[in-house]
This record gives sequence, structure tokens and C-alpha cells, in this order.
Amino acid sequence: MDDLLRDRFIAIVGARNAVTDPDALAPRLVETRGLYKGASPLLLKAGSTEEVAAIMALATESKTPIVPQSGNTGHVGGQTPRPQSTDVLLSLERMNRLREVDLAANTMTVDAGMVLARAQEIATEHDRLFPLSLGSQGSCQIGGNLSTNAGGTQVLAYGNMRQLCLGLEVVLPTGEIWNGLRKLKKDNTGYDLRDLFIGAEGTLGVITGAVLKLFPRPRGRKVAFIGLDSSEQALSLFEEAVSICGNALTGFELMVRMGVDFTIRHIPGVRDPLASPYPWSVLMEISTSDSEAAADAMMETVLGDAHAKGLIADAAIASSEAQARAFWHLRESMSEAQKPEGGSIKHDVSVPVSEIPAFMAEAEAAVLAAVPGARICAFGHLGDGNIHYNISQPVGADKAAFINRWREVNAIVHALVLKHGGSISAEHGIGQLKRDELAEIRPAIEIDLMRRIKRAFDPAGIMNPDKVVMSS
Amino acid sequence: MDDLLRDRFIAIVGARNAVTDPDALAPRLVETRGLYKGASPLLLKAGSTEEVAAIMALATESKTPIVPQSGNTGHVGGQTPRPQSTDVLLSLERMNRLREVDLAANTMTVDAGMVLARAQEIATEHDRLFPLSLGSQGSCQIGGNLSTNAGGTQVLAYGNMRQLCLGLEVVLPTGEIWNGLRKLKKDNTGYDLRDLFIGAEGTLGVITGAVLKLFPRPRGRKVAFIGLDSSEQALSLFEEAVSICGNALTGFELMVRMGVDFTIRHIPGVRDPLASPYPWSVLMEISTSDSEAAADAMMETVLGDAHAKGLIADAAIASSEAQARAFWHLRESMSEAQKPEGGSIKHDVSVPVSEIPAFMAEAEAAVLAAVPGARICAFGHLGDGNIHYNISQPVGADKAAFINRWREVNAIVHALVLKHGGSISAEHGIGQLKRDELAEIRPAIEIDLMRRIKRAFDPAGIMNPDKVVMSS
Repeated sequence: MDDLLRDRFIAIVGARNAVTDPDALAPRLVETRGLYKGASPLLLKAGSTEEVAAIMALATESKTPIVPQSGNTGHVGGQTPRPQSTDVLLSLERMNRLREVDLAANTMTVDAGMVLARAQEIATEHDRLFPLSLGSQGSCQIGGNLSTNAGGTQVLAYGNMRQLCLGLEVVLPTGEIWNGLRKLKKDNTGYDLRDLFIGAEGTLGVITGAVLKLFPRPRGRKVAFIGLDSSEQALSLFEEAVSICGNALTGFELMVRMGVDFTIRHIPGVRDPLASPYPWSVLMEISTSDSEAAADAMMETVLGDAHAKGLIADAAIASSEAQARAFWHLRESMSEAQKPEGGSIKHDVSVPVSEIPAFMAEAEAAVLAAVPGARICAFGHLGDGNIHYNISQPVGADKAAFINRWREVNAIVHALVLKHGGSISAEHGIGQLKRDELAEIRPAIEIDLMRRIKRAFDPAGIMNPDKVVMSS
Repeated sequence: MDDLLRDRFIAIVGARNAVTDPDALAPRLVETRGLYKGASPLLLKAGSTEEVAAIMALATESKTPIVPQSGNTGHVGGQTPRPQSTDVLLSLERMNRLREVDLAANTMTVDAGMVLARAQEIATEHDRLFPLSLGSQGSCQIGGNLSTNAGGTQVLAYGNMRQLCLGLEVVLPTGEIWNGLRKLKKDNTGYDLRDLFIGAEGTLGVITGAVLKLFPRPRGRKVAFIGLDSSEQALSLFEEAVSICGNALTGFELMVRMGVDFTIRHIPGVRDPLASPYPWSVLMEISTSDSEAAADAMMETVLGDAHAKGLIADAAIASSEAQARAFWHLRESMSEAQKPEGGSIKHDVSVPVSEIPAFMAEAEAAVLAAVPGARICAFGHLGDGNIHYNISQPVGADKAAFINRWREVNAIVHALVLKHGGSISAEHGIGQLKRDELAEIRPAIEIDLMRRIKRAFDPAGIMNPDKVVMSS
């Protein structure tokens, strides 16, 4: 990048909002797992939608690739610039304002740079719920949540980010601004641009603002930790719970024994909620809008029916909010608890809910055949069919050698995912990590349609290039 | 169209599945309200996805425009061929098979030609609910429901067609088949093609099959008919009900007095559920997944709280399923009941829920100023902000002269819709009726993006041309 061009970019945001020092840039060039390392001469911290528009207009004029980066918490390298590139990083961290809360419409309009935890707080301050909940909520930003169509533990009842957003403001690659900040629950006026930008991982435009849905805060909540003998029982328990609770079933997380053991071993303060170890565990949450008593009654009915049908071995119902948080803490620490156990090869997959038991059994057999001694630490959102199928290295194995088998093990697991009609990326997206694999496994016409959309929105190919889909 | 080409099209489906006789074609060339009349030399009834693919491939080769038509119940002329055209009509009515029910995944996979009422029946036969409910459900088809992103009375709790569909099979304008028949609740693998085809009104491809979501059948249902003094009270009642019921609030319909009066006057068997007439009425439905008692308790709480706050004037709770159906019948007959009162100028608009009282007051004043004596017969889904703002002619006015003012009255009402941040088509779509108006009121960049998508998917411009958006 020549100095003149660089100075023109810097002039848009002001010198103190531009970063060129390699040491200051370094943490922005690696993603959380260290799988990707990129290069960039410049980070721009835009202060307004108009500044983003000016940056994109100059990028179009100068054919400069732009990589939007939010909290840098993504797992697929979508936020990481390319190696040996002159990709310019664009941060919206200064754009973190609340634009409006409309309690009657149950919406809030925010800048895309707002941190997720702040959005949750604002909802709480107004006696509302913004349900998106992720491990990274202290640093991830709304723009990144939208661009990856983020999921998390509350998808079962509230849906993922696509269902939590009513309207968007987007700066296009040309620098034009699309104001689609609508608050409407129903609006059938042409093609669904909003859902095209959501989940596009910053390859079609830069999301700068959003209208988010707010929900009533549940008045009743019950959380149970349940021990089971098989994944088939977990599926039957889920069907029973949905039939009784409907949308009041707000959490249904499945965990294998290995994950529970790792968590008890490595996370301070975590204890097994049950007296004996069971091969499978479920964390079940019921939230009711009308009263605490309604949640109590539902939990009693579900567990009573499940017990009568022989579906569950043991169950602990949280008797306080602190205990409920402790149950969730166990589940949410599961990924962290793997780290002291060495390398972990990860998968973020989904299958139809009904296929989970078969998938789990076949995947375990196939992985153990390929990597004897591997330790399956699978957990996830059974109610959504979404399993984080993580595999810890065998005890005493060489970490680097194990991690080097990432693609090989992925291929084994993903083949079974496809056999069961599933997806190789349930919630983390495609980024760089799964781009080529997606192109291999999906029908050619599907990839071709995506390329046509990419070219229609970004003919110059400057918008987060080589992520999700190659332009040609 | 020359005979050779026509014969090639006919050969794909067989002679008995092709219609060329003008008398037999006639009913397919007009839409329900008689606003549009088109021309077509040929109707093809495809019997399989492969036949649809062959038709589209020949259409691309010969540059023949194709107009997909489902139940012909649309309100915006999206299904009507152009006048003086050689548009070929494509019907999927023979493709009405159930492909699969998966109870564990809570899905059913159907041909796009299946009639909506049949889909509802199949769900019921399997002790499930398929929630989409429309006045035209006896003749409209799933493909049309998807292509218009249909709404109806159950959107409040279950969402519109976009939320009720997990996967699609689509034949592209070139004749290529995209198999996106996935059953996954979470799948973040690239651009959202599904939601692009849904609501595209057949302008990007032909939907031939779909995976639809099934829901548990509610165990409890309570329906109340409520009299109120103002629309502000109706809004407050809605907020109260949402706060108590959450997703158990499955219906919240607002009606003005004129609509209730018309219905009592003209629809056999309909009576006023309340002893005195009130200026505003609400039909409120609560459905609970766990028990009948839970619905009773919620209804009691909502009405008790609302009464204590002075929000409601009177209320009747249906004491039987027959009475609940009678309340719904009153609401659903409202459009029919307008017909004996002469001409009706209709609007299908939405505004943010919080704006409804202001919009209703301003629209009434503006319409009466322009058309003294006009009778406002507004009703609709308050909980979704979606009002069918229908206006019956003044008593004794000339019907044709009144209907001739359609565009003028539309302009008055739509100006207020836009002022309140609303949409000129909440659920019926754009078709021919609102295409030019949409291009006028939306930002140029938005229409431009839609045109780019149209060209990317249908470069030859043969797919339901001139609907939703002009190609150039």
C-alpha cells in the first residue's frame, strides 16, 4: 500500500483512530485458536456510518480489500486478513452506542460495534430480555453476531441471530448506505436483503446498525441436571419435554461423561450435581412468562413422566438461582476444561434432532478406529441438533502430531454428518476454515448461486475476499 | 408462440396435462379481485420436479417467459400472466404428494403443489400442528404460501412461512435443480438462499418441494372476545397479555366497530358476543402446551389485570370449542361481510406495534377528509402490527367511481404508513399491484440490489417477468 493511499484512509478516521504499528496490530492478525495468521498494514476504527461509507468508497476507488473485524472471537478465520496481504482491517468498536429503545415495539436499535454483554444489560435495565447468549459475550460485538448468524444456548426457544433481528443498516462495498432499519414484524416487500447480509460474514457489505428484538423477561425459571444411560433416552426426554413445555423449554444441552469429568477436574468450584457418574448428562431449562409456579409445575410434570417411562436415571433440580448458575457454569466451561488435557480437534456440526443418537454412536466408533485412545468430549444443543463434537488427544500423545490430523479427523466426522443429512457448520460459519470443504460437499449449483450473489454485491471483490466462497 | 415450440412444451407433461383451450384457460388469467387480467397461450401441469426442470430448460433455450401459478388466491397479481403476452402458465397442482413425515425431527416434506388445508390435516393426523392458517387454505398451495412468505392469524406465536420452513427444493430458470431439502434447525453454511427464494413470488425460481416444521398440538386453548373504548387500550391490553403469556399468546386480532356490524348484518349465524356495542373489539387467543388449566389460569390473569387497570369494557370467554370457533368465524368473515356493502379499497399494511393507535387515528381522519362518508372497516393482526385497512364506499355511492379512486386512497394511507415507519405490504407481497409504488418509496440502492439479484438468478429474464421488480 502506498503512503498516499494509506494517508487518505487514515484521514477519514483521524490519526488516533488508525493503527499501523506492527506490535499493536499483531493481536488482530491471529484468531482465537491460532489456526490462522494474517497480515495487514492498517487498522481503521470508524466512528460513524458515514466514516464506514467513506472508507468503502475509497476502497472501491483504489481496489483495496477490506476485512471487517468485530470482537475477533470467531472460530473459522472469517475475521482474519489473508497472509501476505494488504487487506485493511475495519473495526467498529467506537460505534458502540445505543440508538433507541422502543418498549412498546419491544425493540432496541444499536450500533454494530456494541459488545453483546452491553446489549444484554440494556435489555435487563428495561426489564426485557435479549436472549442471545455466548461464551464470548464480554467481547464479541453485535455486528459479528449478525455476520455469523450467531446461535448459542437460547436458540431452542428464541432462534439464532437471524430471528432476533428486525432491521439492518449496511454499508455496501461501493460506500453506498442501505438503511433497512425497520421495526416491522411483517414486511413482504421484495427479496429478503436482511437475511442475505446476516450470516454473510462481512463478504457482501459492512453491517453498521441493527434493530434487535426484545422479549419479556421470564418470571419463572427452573434448571435441572439429569443423568441418563443413553443418548436415545436423551432424545426421548427431549421429545417429552417439548411436548409438555412447547416454547417454555429454553435449554436442552447434552454432555458426554468425558466432558463432565474434565470440567470437574479442571474448573475450580465445579462439582458433579449428581451422586453417581452417568454416561450421559442433560441440562434442561424451563422458563415461563407468567409465574415461578408454572415453571415448577412443568419441571415436575416432565421429570415425573420421564421417570415413569424409565428415561432418566437421576436428576437434580436447582433449588436456588446460584445453583442454577452453577449447573450452567459446568456446561459452559466444557470447552475451557479441555485445554489442560492437550490438543483438541473440534467440530461444530448439526444433524436432524432425530439422528443424534445414531450419529453419536457412529462418530465415536469411526474416530476411535482412526485415533485409538482419542477422548470424545462432545456436548451441545441437542434441541437444535447442534453438537460441538470435540475430540481431545489420547493421554500422553504428542499434541502437535494430534493437531496435524485435524483435516483427516474432520473428514471422518463430516462424512457421517453428511450421511445423516447434517451441516458441517451449525453456528460458527464458514470463514476460511471450511470454505473449500463447503465447495466440495455442496452441489455445484449452490456454490454457483453464492458466487453470483457475491459478484452482484461486490463486483470489485474487495469485501472480505476469499471468505465463505471464492469469487470465481 | 409457434406450434413447434408449443408442442415441445406439451410433450414434457403429456397432452392431457396441457391446457390450450381459451375457455379452460380463462379462470387462470384473472386474479381473485379482478384487478388484473392476463393472457397466456398455454398452461402446463407438471407432474414431477424433473418435468419442471425440463420446462424451465426449454424456456431458457427458447426465451419463453414462465409464470408459476399455485392456487390463484394471491391479492397482488403475482400469479397473473401479463396482458398481450405469451407467458406460459406453470401449475404444480399434480405435485401434491406428501414425501415424508419425520416425527422425531418434527418435520414433514411435501410437494409444493399440496393444498394448505391438506398439509394441516396431515399434521393433525400425526398429532402435530402446522400453524399456517389463511382464509384461502382450502385452495392455496404450499408453493404459493412460500413464494409469498404467507402470514395469517398465527404469525404472532409461530411466525410466517419463512419461520415455518427448514428446507427447499427449487428449479432454477435454467432448469437446474437446487436440492436444499434440509431438516436442520441450525446451518450456517454460506448465504441464505432459502430465505431469498421464500417471498420472491416466483421471480427467482420455481419452488417444487419443502421441508415444513411441525409443532406440538396445544393441550389448552382459550378464546375471548373483548370490547374496548380505544385503540390505545387495545395496545395496552396487548402489552399486558404478551408480558403474562409470552409465546402462549397465539392470537390478538383488532377490529373496528364497522367491521363487527357488517359481519353481524351479512354473515348468517354471526351474533355480537357482547351485550353492548363497543368502538373497538379484540379477539384474544391463548394456547398452552401443558394443560387446559394453564390456559384458563392465564386468561383469568390477563383479563383480571386488564380489568383492574381499566383497559377493557367487557369480555366474553368462549365456554366451548364451538363458541371459540364462532368468535374466530366473526373475525375471519370480515372481508366477506364487506362485499354486500359495495366497493372496498384495501390495504395490507404494517407499522411498528406501538404506532398502531396513532396510525389508525390519522388514517381515519385523512381518508374521511378525502372521501366523506367512507366507512373504515379496518381489522387485523395487532400483535404483528399488521392491519388490513379496508375502506367500504359511502352508502349510496357509485361503486365504480369509488374503486377508481383506489390509487388515490392508497397514496393517502401509504403516506401515513411510511410516516410511521411501516410497510405497504405486510403479508400479501408486491406482485404487479405494488411494484412501481415500491420502486418509488424505497431507497434507490434497495431496488438496485433487488435488480442485481434478479439478474444474477435469471439473466434471461424469463422467470415470472415484471413482478416484484423490473429487471432493468
